[in-house]
Amino acid sequence: MSTIYNFYAGPAVIYDEVLARAKEEFLDFAGTGMSVLEISHRAKAFDEVVAEAEANMKELMGLGDDYRVLFLQGGASTQFSMLPMNFLPQDGTADYILTGSWSEKAMKEAKKIGGVHAAFEGGENHYRHIPGQEELTFSDAPAYVHMTTNNTIYGTEFHYVPETDAPLVADMSSDILSGPVAFDRFSLIYAGAQKNLGPAGVTVVVLRKSFLEKAGDVPATMLKYATHAEKNSLYNTPPVFSVYMVNLVLRHLKSLGGLPAAAKTNAEKAKYIYDAIDSSDGFYRGHAEKESRSLMNITFTMADADLEKRFVAEAEAEGFIGLKGHRSVGGLRASVYNAMPVAGAGALADFMAEFMRKNG
Amino acid sequence: MSTIYNFYAGPAVIYDEVLARAKEEFLDFAGTGMSVLEISHRAKAFDEVVAEAEANMKELMGLGDDYRVLFLQGGASTQFSMLPMNFLPQDGTADYILTGSWSEKAMKEAKKIGGVHAAFEGGENHYRHIPGQEELTFSDAPAYVHMTTNNTIYGTEFHYVPETDAPLVADMSSDILSGPVAFDRFSLIYAGAQKNLGPAGVTVVVLRKSFLEKAGDVPATMLKYATHAEKNSLYNTPPVFSVYMVNLVLRHLKSLGGLPAAAKTNAEKAKYIYDAIDSSDGFYRGHAEKESRSLMNITFTMADADLEKRFVAEAEAEGFIGLKGHRSVGGLRASVYNAMPVAGAGALADFMAEFMRKNG
Repeated sequence: MSTIYNFYAGPAVIYDEVLARAKEEFLDFAGTGMSVLEISHRAKAFDEVVAEAEANMKELMGLGDDYRVLFLQGGASTQFSMLPMNFLPQDGTADYILTGSWSEKAMKEAKKIGGVHAAFEGGENHYRHIPGQEELTFSDAPAYVHMTTNNTIYGTEFHYVPETDAPLVADMSSDILSGPVAFDRFSLIYAGAQKNLGPAGVTVVVLRKSFLEKAGDVPATMLKYATHAEKNSLYNTPPVFSVYMVNLVLRHLKSLGGLPAAAKTNAEKAKYIYDAIDSSDGFYRGHAEKESRSLMNITFTMADADLEKRFVAEAEAEGFIGLKGHRSVGGLRASVYNAMPVAGAGALADFMAEFMRKNG
Repeated sequence: MSTIYNFYAGPAVIYDEVLARAKEEFLDFAGTGMSVLEISHRAKAFDEVVAEAEANMKELMGLGDDYRVLFLQGGASTQFSMLPMNFLPQDGTADYILTGSWSEKAMKEAKKIGGVHAAFEGGENHYRHIPGQEELTFSDAPAYVHMTTNNTIYGTEFHYVPETDAPLVADMSSDILSGPVAFDRFSLIYAGAQKNLGPAGVTVVVLRKSFLEKAGDVPATMLKYATHAEKNSLYNTPPVFSVYMVNLVLRHLKSLGGLPAAAKTNAEKAKYIYDAIDSSDGFYRGHAEKESRSLMNITFTMADADLEKRFVAEAEAEGFIGLKGHRSVGGLRASVYNAMPVAGAGALADFMAEFMRKNG
C-alpha cells in the first residue's frame, strides 16, 4: 500500500510521533504495569496528565492564571446547549454570528433557553463570506457574542478577532491551535478534540475565571461549568485515554515550535492546494471567497458530480482519503489540520494537476 | 516487576487479549492504513463497529428488536439528569430506591426536574443492605422506578429484579454483563463503560423503543435520547476509540461463553475473597450484609486505619493495585470486574491470609 494521506474533516489525522508513543506505552503507562485505559482517574499518574494538559494548553495559547481549561464530554454539540444554559438568562439575548451550519446549530440551541440575535447572516451567500467588523450588528448589551472561527463545511475562517464590549465566545473546534490568536480576547472557547487536538471523545473548554463567576444556575450538575472547574475536570470519570492523547499532541506541538511554527506550516500546506485550484482555470472552483478562505478545510467543486465522484475514487486509490465534501453541500473538501504533513498537501496538489491534465 | 493485579473500582482492568488486539491494530485499523483514532465516524469501517457493538450488546443481553443500544458521552452522572429530563414531567413523580451514594445522586438530579419519592432509604444502615421486594414502597403510578443494581462504594448488589408496574430503570454501571439478568424487565438501562465494558469515555444506554416514545421534549438536542436513537449514535462525533474498545470487549465476552460463563467466573472470584474475610475471625470485616454482597466490589475494614494503610501499601508492593476504599467511606475495596482473572482473586486471598498471619 502506498503512503496514506488522511484528509478527513474529523476525526482526523494524528501526528505519527504521537501515535507511535501511544502504541509504545499502550500496555505500560508511566511505569505502572497497566494500560492507560485501565488506570483509575484518581491515580496520581493520571492527575499529573490532567494538570500537564491544562498547563500545556494555556502555555500554547499564551493564557495566564485568569483562565481555566476543562476537559469535558459530549462534543461541541453539547456546548451549543451548555453555553446558554450557563450564561444566557431566559429574558436575556445572546448574539450569534452566522457563518455556517455549526453556528446556525449553536444559535438554534440557545433559542431554546433565551433570546437570540443574528449579528450577521451569511446563509444567502452560501456561506462563502466571513463578515468584516463593519458588517456585524450587535444587539444592546448581549449576554455574549458567539462566533465559529472556522467553518468546516464551507471552508471559511475568521482571520481577525471581532471587537465587541460583550463577552466573546468561540467554537474553535476546527482551527484551535492552528496558529497564534489573541486568545485573551475571548471569555470562553470550546473545541471538540478530534481535529487539531487528538482523538474524538473529549471537548476542551477554555474559560476566563471572571466570566465563569457570572454563570447562572443550571438544573443539572454535569451541565454546569463550575462543577468541572471546581474539581479540575475530575468531578466524574473523565475520558481518560482521550485526555492522555490530547496531552501527547500538545507536547508534540510544543516540540515543533508551538503556534508560530504551526501557522507557518499550515499556510504552506493551504497554499499548495489553493494554488492548484487557482491555476486550474476553472477546472477546480474554490467555494469560499478568497479573503475568507480557511487554512484548515479547503472546499472546491468541479464541473459536474460525475467528475467529482471520479476524482474522489481515483484520489482514494492513490492513498488520498476523505476528500468527499460534507453531505450537506457536496463537492470536495481537503482538510489539512495541524498534523497533516506538508508532503501530503504537496502530493495532493500534484495529484490535482495530473487529474486535470487527464480530464481537463 | 511481578504480575500486576488491577483492583481499581473504575476505570478498571481490561482483558489482556483485548488490549493486545487493540495494540496490534493501533496503526492500521481494518486494513485502512490509519489508526482507529484517525478514522472518520462517517467511514464505513466505523459504521460497522457501531452496528456490531449494538448487535453484540443485545445478543449478550438476550434482547430483541424492541430495544435500542446507544453509545453516548458524559458518564452515568449525565444520565442522572438526562433520564428525568426525558421521562419525568414537572408535575410527575419518579421513585428512587436508595441503596448508596450513586442512587442518592441520581435522585438529587431528578428533584431539579420534577417530583421524587424514595421507595427505600438505606442510608441509616450505612447502605449495608439491599431491600427485599417487601421493603419497597412505591408511589402511585410513578413516571419510572430507578434502581442502582450494584453499589460500587458500599459493595452491595441486587440479586433479583424488583416487581413494579412502572417502567423500571437501572444504573448498571458497575455490574452490567457480569451475569444473566432478566434485562427485558427494564425499560432503560445505563452504564458507564469503564468497569465491565471497556475504557472510560462512553456511556451505554439500552432502552425499550416503546418507552423512548413516551419521552417528553427537552430543550437541548444532545440531551434527548431520540436524537441519538434516530441517528444510530452518530448524530454528532461519537467517542470513536471507546466504542471500538467496547466492541472488542463484547466480542471477547462472547468468545468466553457469554454471561453464564461470566457469572460462573465472577462467583468463583468473589468466593475466594469473601472466604478470606469470613474465615479471618474478625481480622477482616465485610461491610455489606451477607445476603446483599456484591460480586463486583468487595468492601471490608480492619481494626484500625493504620493497619488498613499498611495492608494497602504491602499489597501494592506485591502488585495488588487499587485496594483503598472509596474516599467517602474508607476501608478496603477489591473490585473484581469481569476482566479480573480468577488467579488474581486467588492471589489476593492468599495475600490476605498471609498478611493476617503476620499482623493478626
